[in-house]
Amino acid sequence: MGNQVDDNARPGEFDLIARYFAPLANSSGAFGLRDDAALVDISPGARLVVTQDAVASGVHFFADDPPDLVARKALRVNLSDLAAKGARPTAFSLALGLWDGWDEAWLSSFASGLGEDCARFGITLTGGDTFRSPGGLVVSITAFGEITDGDYVSRLGASPSDTLFVTGTIGDGALGLKVRSGELITNDTDAALLRQAYWLPNPPVAFAPLIARYASASMDISDGFLGDLRKLAAGSDVGFDIPASRVPLSREVATLAENRPDILASAFSGGDDYQILFTVPQSRVARFEQEAQKGDIRVTALGQANANAGVVAISGPDGAPLALASESWNHF
Amino acid sequence: MGNQVDDNARPGEFDLIARYFAPLANSSGAFGLRDDAALVDISPGARLVVTQDAVASGVHFFADDPPDLVARKALRVNLSDLAAKGARPTAFSLALGLWDGWDEAWLSSFASGLGEDCARFGITLTGGDTFRSPGGLVVSITAFGEITDGDYVSRLGASPSDTLFVTGTIGDGALGLKVRSGELITNDTDAALLRQAYWLPNPPVAFAPLIARYASASMDISDGFLGDLRKLAAGSDVGFDIPASRVPLSREVATLAENRPDILASAFSGGDDYQILFTVPQSRVARFEQEAQKGDIRVTALGQANANAGVVAISGPDGAPLALASESWNHF
Repeated sequence: MGNQVDDNARPGEFDLIARYFAPLANSSGAFGLRDDAALVDISPGARLVVTQDAVASGVHFFADDPPDLVARKALRVNLSDLAAKGARPTAFSLALGLWDGWDEAWLSSFASGLGEDCARFGITLTGGDTFRSPGGLVVSITAFGEITDGDYVSRLGASPSDTLFVTGTIGDGALGLKVRSGELITNDTDAALLRQAYWLPNPPVAFAPLIARYASASMDISDGFLGDLRKLAAGSDVGFDIPASRVPLSREVATLAENRPDILASAFSGGDDYQILFTVPQSRVARFEQEAQKGDIRVTALGQANANAGVVAISGPDGAPLALASESWNHF
Repeated sequence: MGNQVDDNARPGEFDLIARYFAPLANSSGAFGLRDDAALVDISPGARLVVTQDAVASGVHFFADDPPDLVARKALRVNLSDLAAKGARPTAFSLALGLWDGWDEAWLSSFASGLGEDCARFGITLTGGDTFRSPGGLVVSITAFGEITDGDYVSRLGASPSDTLFVTGTIGDGALGLKVRSGELITNDTDAALLRQAYWLPNPPVAFAPLIARYASASMDISDGFLGDLRKLAAGSDVGFDIPASRVPLSREVATLAENRPDILASAFSGGDDYQILFTVPQSRVARFEQEAQKGDIRVTALGQANANAGVVAISGPDGAPLALASESWNHF
């Protein structure tokens, strides 16, 4: 919009879209990205779920992070929201704000990362916008998913006596960020695994149907296990008192956090997990656990909700609450 | 995501959303913005149209532009896309990237501007994201609209002999930007009108039903009349040779452009119009013009398409093409 480009070494917006992004737009309603809008189709009997998360250079990733991983993370932080709602992802729209120094090698890697995840998750690009972002790269993705009518799971529906569960492990991304920035040191193998967890979260997209069928409340963990547990408690007017020992940790995180309550606190409150935190009504827990065992996704029961609306505690080995409360993480 | 905030003078993300944005989320599927995603409803028999445009400080607006107008412009550049497709706007999702120096007065004005346009256009906020954008404000909006099945109008459907039309007037926003930046001087009244046109485009949202009913191809003008006319020509494999004298100008733009071909060139290629450029098949032109006359929106016939695929000329009083071709505007 009104910015003259005189750098002929880089493709113009038209060429850029045709070369890198049109191949990701496979639905007929996207018009090969040759139009300014798109039709998003919804299967008969389904309803449309929408989520939008944006990531910015220097905040959610580093300017020199691998571009294909930046792209895939920007997409996956949205897919984790859809999965937590019980929705099957179908498509996404992309607004890509490029800093003034971008080059074609960067863009090519970014687009190929997106393409890899489009294929992996069976989703397609509907369109969007490319724009100049002089302050640094911004990737704003709006993701679309489908659910059967009535199956949407909000974070507002938990009752006292529901059992709290979490997928995957907690803290890998948060400690990966600390390893990435040199703040934490560990052996090379673990460092590589943790960095990878930070760069490329692995939201349990395939778990969505079980969420839709069994969960009373659900949300993805994007701002830290502890903070998001507080949001679930506040949203549903319930409380949680969870033994720290039940929170599932990877071997790498467990190794780093051994006898280091400060590192455990970082793992619990640091963010970048993109796992699902959810509750299941007591009457359905046995059946749910039976079903969940059939899949590949790790699920851990953390304990029962209680009636202390909005109160969350993580208790240590002696039953006393861990001193984690001072940290308050935030998108800003 | 992982950024600690110690500035207690400003509301946290939770409070900010509850105070400023939840009042704009009136659909039940938005859950009062207390969830991480939303249900977007579609009327029976309708299809969902999606568009996403983002704006960045220093590119699409100035950092010190009035925040309510920044908000409304960010929304309206999306509404013009929907209108050009023949779609009725229903809802939008917002990713708001705040620079480190934002304050609550700014945010309050921004939200009240959004609220004003929500009411004006009958649309509601579904959700989105707020995030830190250290490089400057970024507003990324994804807008949703509805059309009756079969009514979507792309930019790919014009045929030679179709008549080209445009809504509103051309160049007000582009010259408003030049007035805003001090590059152009005019009398105070005209300067205020032009600045306002730059700050607050007025997309012809109410014109969408006529587009849906009559247009063979349509797009909004966001990157300049001339550039977007080229895109329409390229998309539809037709050509246009338009007399410059037919292009509708406001009195303010006409005054500035008189005997100044350079200023006329800026008006034609500068962007920020957010009007609709569209074609109507010859057999339907009379009926369309009859219908269009009943409304308040100015519509101007510019001439017929021809078979010179992708070739666009704007001709001067002597019939020779105006020398406008050297300018190439771009989102970047």
